[in-house]
Amino acid sequence: MSDEQELGITESKQYNTGEWYAEVVQKAGLANYGPEGMSGFIVTRPRAYALWERVQGFLDAKFKSTGVQNAYFPLFIPESYLEREKDVVEGFDPEVAWVTHAGHQELEERLAVRPTSESIIAPYMAQWVRSHRDLPMRVNQWASVVRWEATETKPFFRTKEFLWQEGHTAHATHDDAWEETMTRLEQYESVYEDLLAIPVLRGAKPEHDKFPGAHTTTTVEALMPDGKSVQGATSHHLGTSFAEAFDITYTDVDEESQATHTTSWGLSWRALGALIMTHSDDQGLVLPHTVAPEQVVVVPIWQADTQEKVLEYAESITEELEADGIRVELDDRDERNPGFKFNEWELKGVPVRFEIGPNEVDDDVVTVVHRPDGESKEVPREDIAETVRAEFDEVYAKLYATAEENLAENVREADSRADILGTIGQHGGYVKAPWCGDEDCEAEIKDQIAAEIVMVPLNDEEAEIHGGEECAVCGDDAEETAYFAKSY
Amino acid sequence: MSDEQELGITESKQYNTGEWYAEVVQKAGLANYGPEGMSGFIVTRPRAYALWERVQGFLDAKFKSTGVQNAYFPLFIPESYLEREKDVVEGFDPEVAWVTHAGHQELEERLAVRPTSESIIAPYMAQWVRSHRDLPMRVNQWASVVRWEATETKPFFRTKEFLWQEGHTAHATHDDAWEETMTRLEQYESVYEDLLAIPVLRGAKPEHDKFPGAHTTTTVEALMPDGKSVQGATSHHLGTSFAEAFDITYTDVDEESQATHTTSWGLSWRALGALIMTHSDDQGLVLPHTVAPEQVVVVPIWQADTQEKVLEYAESITEELEADGIRVELDDRDERNPGFKFNEWELKGVPVRFEIGPNEVDDDVVTVVHRPDGESKEVPREDIAETVRAEFDEVYAKLYATAEENLAENVREADSRADILGTIGQHGGYVKAPWCGDEDCEAEIKDQIAAEIVMVPLNDEEAEIHGGEECAVCGDDAEETAYFAKSY
Ligand SMILES: [Zn+2]
Ligand SMILES: [Zn+2]
Repeated sequence: MSDEQELGITESKQYNTGEWYAEVVQKAGLANYGPEGMSGFIVTRPRAYALWERVQGFLDAKFKSTGVQNAYFPLFIPESYLEREKDVVEGFDPEVAWVTHAGHQELEERLAVRPTSESIIAPYMAQWVRSHRDLPMRVNQWASVVRWEATETKPFFRTKEFLWQEGHTAHATHDDAWEETMTRLEQYESVYEDLLAIPVLRGAKPEHDKFPGAHTTTTVEALMPDGKSVQGATSHHLGTSFAEAFDITYTDVDEESQATHTTSWGLSWRALGALIMTHSDDQGLVLPHTVAPEQVVVVPIWQADTQEKVLEYAESITEELEADGIRVELDDRDERNPGFKFNEWELKGVPVRFEIGPNEVDDDVVTVVHRPDGESKEVPREDIAETVRAEFDEVYAKLYATAEENLAENVREADSRADILGTIGQHGGYVKAPWCGDEDCEAEIKDQIAAEIVMVPLNDEEAEIHGGEECAVCGDDAEETAYFAKSY
Repeated sequence: MSDEQELGITESKQYNTGEWYAEVVQKAGLANYGPEGMSGFIVTRPRAYALWERVQGFLDAKFKSTGVQNAYFPLFIPESYLEREKDVVEGFDPEVAWVTHAGHQELEERLAVRPTSESIIAPYMAQWVRSHRDLPMRVNQWASVVRWEATETKPFFRTKEFLWQEGHTAHATHDDAWEETMTRLEQYESVYEDLLAIPVLRGAKPEHDKFPGAHTTTTVEALMPDGKSVQGATSHHLGTSFAEAFDITYTDVDEESQATHTTSWGLSWRALGALIMTHSDDQGLVLPHTVAPEQVVVVPIWQADTQEKVLEYAESITEELEADGIRVELDDRDERNPGFKFNEWELKGVPVRFEIGPNEVDDDVVTVVHRPDGESKEVPREDIAETVRAEFDEVYAKLYATAEENLAENVREADSRADILGTIGQHGGYVKAPWCGDEDCEAEIKDQIAAEIVMVPLNDEEAEIHGGEECAVCGDDAEETAYFAKSY
């Protein structure tokens, strides 16, 4: 990347979101496409993997503090295991990659590369759970899964292999499993809102779009700047269907055998896609300090006669930040001018830039620039580490506020088929409408405009509000409030 | 596991090491065997995965402080990529699991489930490395790999899928690559010696046993209590073979194109196998505090009239240890007697036990018991967190000393074919012998007694010592000192 022209983003976020996104991913050094013969796969480069490590660290700590233990289950699942829960095999059948040979031998039974692990984890849970004293049982694994989707690849949003975590739990009662489902949903909400600066909506998937075999699928949905919704993570109350298919039973206090109530929940690297898509701009990547590989870049600006004092000052500030645990990079490359450096670090998404020239040295100050909006200010050199943490919070608040405003402006209501189609067609975003609960009424919208019901509210009160109305599509009695949106 | 008899280890470490090991793995709750149709796979339960997380944390911090970045490459490798480095394809061909179908479609080109990732990482490195300023380039991934070995499964030692890390680097010169190779070997040595309490020998694999295509394969070898050697981790200087096959070149300061010199290095969960095998005993698992899920178990011992004061005292001690960051478990189960608890926590490998009865409360002391040898002592209640850290170090030193003694006693010399065979047959362990360097001379030993040359010393001086002698097998001039041993 020695050519300056290669550096800049050429596509427009507003007018050409898809191409712009692909360009940011590539030029910010986040990912490459897979090799020939493996379209749909990506190579996750260190700058993106570092983001994933921060998501992992944040979420894993929450899991561990709420009784989750990590484990690791085999990558492959025998076909006969997948078939034991018929809804699961039907749900994933068209997307499974199959291992049929090992070495020079054909296998007796072909093995699925896991599309999700319920079918292999459940039989082991059945062995491990004996008595009510073994419950709740919670295991999680950080792994990759493979789903051979035919649709176009979008790094992190849609890839044939993706990184995720999948948690699997068993409980004594329906209510315990429901509490677990909601605990994980809240933790996912926190990943988006407290780590990635993205507000989300919580809801449930409609009946016909639940995880195969699930009692309820809950979701956090994030609105992207192009008006499409992203399913940010899902948490499933599986009821007793897996417990019955795989015999996960326990002996209760009265020595009676009971089926457990199970859950599963997962967050994938799609969270990185939402992160990149939400905050970045036509200069490149924008990141909050919570996940940025470098939180501050220090750019010294010197002439021959000021080089020594500027560099010395910049170095002492860099060291002070480092000593305080801040991830800071001093860009003292001699062969690049400050403008080039500004562009490069903007492209890479560093949230805060320090500019240090002879004036800053003389006045004992630092010029601080915020990545998202270019706001610039002078701050005192003293207590610089404390000051920069306040700047981080300001930048985070700006990112969150922009995303929140976008969300608030883009939830609209509609009460007829034409209104739903027209509103989504014109504005994108979410359209709330009373809905009878019938999949056919979603199909009518989907066929016309590729929007679907991404969620119904979890809050029963809101459902009741529309309970007395008529389905916006068919006119029958409404039972739910449907959120229609186009989605990734 | 409600039956007390199920708890205990029934096999003997000394007389029946293989069965004893399998029993410890199962009864200490570390792993289960894979499902039907998937022999050779294991399920890694939370207590074992927690050990792996500690190995990961230790090693990953060392990697990051020495310039390594994590990344993630696809799980699959197109067959044509594997074939680009002919030595690699020949090395792994009999062990590769092949994906041939996805959904209902047959793939145009079959995909290997990665047995190791050189072949897919190298082409990307070739894209990323342009100039000498891009070097060294270092990426690492934590992942699972699949090698369809036909030999008997031994959890963590030999499984068809295993967890590991694989690092891949490119350098400007042969010497830089050599320095990298040795840096990683030293870090692996540190995992064994400073984290797992296992002394290792450092060496190189003989020419005929190198990684396919490598210039040099270095290894750390650990001696197990049954006299067999475990290859603990390997670090490969790959020379320019991968750079040439995959065109990983850079422009040097004179604007000339040069081939890079690459390395790769990996440590797998075999380290957990070595850990379990080395320290554990006929009572079950033994772990150093560095990796133990629980470092201390507090067992209160009460009668009805002393219950309140004993529990209160035990709780206050537990809280104090927790506050100090020590992983401590208070076993206050009412339905179990102290003897049962002692056995259970010994089985699980907790390095230090606190016994607290009314006498301890009255005297303001704690009775401390070391897991490895049952040594018991009273220590003051005051400064208990500081005290227990000293006890951890004592336990660690005991474990290390025992393993070190075993190693020191089991490196023997031999100067004839009969002597090699007789010494290994009688004692196991390592036998050092002058060697001409010819694979045929190893084959003669291997055929007779299944021992092989696990390493030759890296230290050139030692090689010279045997340089003037005759090969112990064929009588030709010796060029190396071979370490013969049976191995896992
Ligand atoms: Zn309707
Ligand atoms: Zn010889």
